[in-house]
Amino acid sequence: MPEVEVCFSPNVYPLFHKDDAIVVVIDVLRATSAITTAFYNGVAQMIPVATVEEALEYKKKGFIVAAERNGEVVPGFDLGNSPFGYMSKKVAGKTIAITTTNGTQAIKAAEKAKRILIGSFLNLDVMIDYLRAEKKDVLLLCAGWKNKFNLEDTLYAGAIADALISKYEFTTSCDSAIAAGQLYHLAKHDLYEFLSRSSHRNRLSKLNLDRDIKYCLTPNQCPVIPVMEKGSLTKLQLA
Amino acid sequence: MPEVEVCFSPNVYPLFHKDDAIVVVIDVLRATSAITTAFYNGVAQMIPVATVEEALEYKKKGFIVAAERNGEVVPGFDLGNSPFGYMSKKVAGKTIAITTTNGTQAIKAAEKAKRILIGSFLNLDVMIDYLRAEKKDVLLLCAGWKNKFNLEDTLYAGAIADALISKYEFTTSCDSAIAAGQLYHLAKHDLYEFLSRSSHRNRLSKLNLDRDIKYCLTPNQCPVIPVMEKGSLTKLQLA
Repeated sequence: MPEVEVCFSPNVYPLFHKDDAIVVVIDVLRATSAITTAFYNGVAQMIPVATVEEALEYKKKGFIVAAERNGEVVPGFDLGNSPFGYMSKKVAGKTIAITTTNGTQAIKAAEKAKRILIGSFLNLDVMIDYLRAEKKDVLLLCAGWKNKFNLEDTLYAGAIADALISKYEFTTSCDSAIAAGQLYHLAKHDLYEFLSRSSHRNRLSKLNLDRDIKYCLTPNQCPVIPVMEKGSLTKLQLA
Repeated sequence: MPEVEVCFSPNVYPLFHKDDAIVVVIDVLRATSAITTAFYNGVAQMIPVATVEEALEYKKKGFIVAAERNGEVVPGFDLGNSPFGYMSKKVAGKTIAITTTNGTQAIKAAEKAKRILIGSFLNLDVMIDYLRAEKKDVLLLCAGWKNKFNLEDTLYAGAIADALISKYEFTTSCDSAIAAGQLYHLAKHDLYEFLSRSSHRNRLSKLNLDRDIKYCLTPNQCPVIPVMEKGSLTKLQLA
């Protein structure tokens, strides 16, 4: 039976790496929600880069460039990681370079994985369906906050792990998968309320991003799966 | 108000280090339970060492030496980390050198902390009382399993964090402390049953250590707190 594991932060990814596993990168508030939203709204391609300096190089070349640090748009860039920035017709069909505090670092950490997908509550059910059909080992990689555990990414990991194990033929011997599943069960009836005490939600609330948070926690609004292919993200063609 | 944080594995300790915090090292199954039991039964001093080679040096010098790897006593040594090995009159008054798979590595990781205490369910209430009275920042450091998250250490961390926050004047902005507290609430009525799916409990069950597990999960049997002082553990003198 394929196995599901959960890795709580990018810096421990090497302990979890398996050559044949599918890695789902998770940064619910807000990088992977923004990326999911972008592809749902017709963005053609996204190039994740680790540093603001690399992002600047793409800007000089004429790309649309998104750069976020500590919850805010880096001055001089076109977009941050608010999903609402990726709904406009201006981005449809375009290639966007993107760097964020945690999300793009997590993609970088997993670069040796065979396949990297982008997960968020916005594509929850379509992700479960895809993983179930693939029947491969799954590693749910939480971006966390500066390499620390965070609750919102853990809840999404728990939602996926729990569905694959309880409904389909997946197994786990990973305590973090069990813990994430239990936390999701506690939280699922009101994710927003459950996260009210969480560190990152409070960090974003101070930036007046409550509208973003509510959007990011509402499942299944964007049934698309972004996938890494040769250094950039594109929309996975679903069967 | 003093803050409580939870660190899920020794390799991320540097992200949590604070100069003035009290660090509680947690390896419930079984190193810190064995150490707590040893001091309750009159052991005078314990010297934690990181490697089997260092442990061997102490053996050559005539010390009683405990060495455990992957749940079993390393051949040629006197003790492993079964708490039942530390209840005999033979160990009372003695100094014991000890190395274990995870617990002694966690102590090593925190060596720059101002104060390091040893926590287990066996000294749960006395630990809460002590931390409450000290009113200093607290970092609950889970030993985990080979630097991965584990459930049993998280539950103990959750028990401490929840008590300090809900009953006393402690605060947290740490998502891992919130998650640990929530998991403890789910588990507290039957820790043994809750852990039935956990990876390490199953690992130990295969070694026929069910008696050890039940002992380690029964709170408040050994109301003593081991403390690191100049490289070795002694019994903290409680007021």
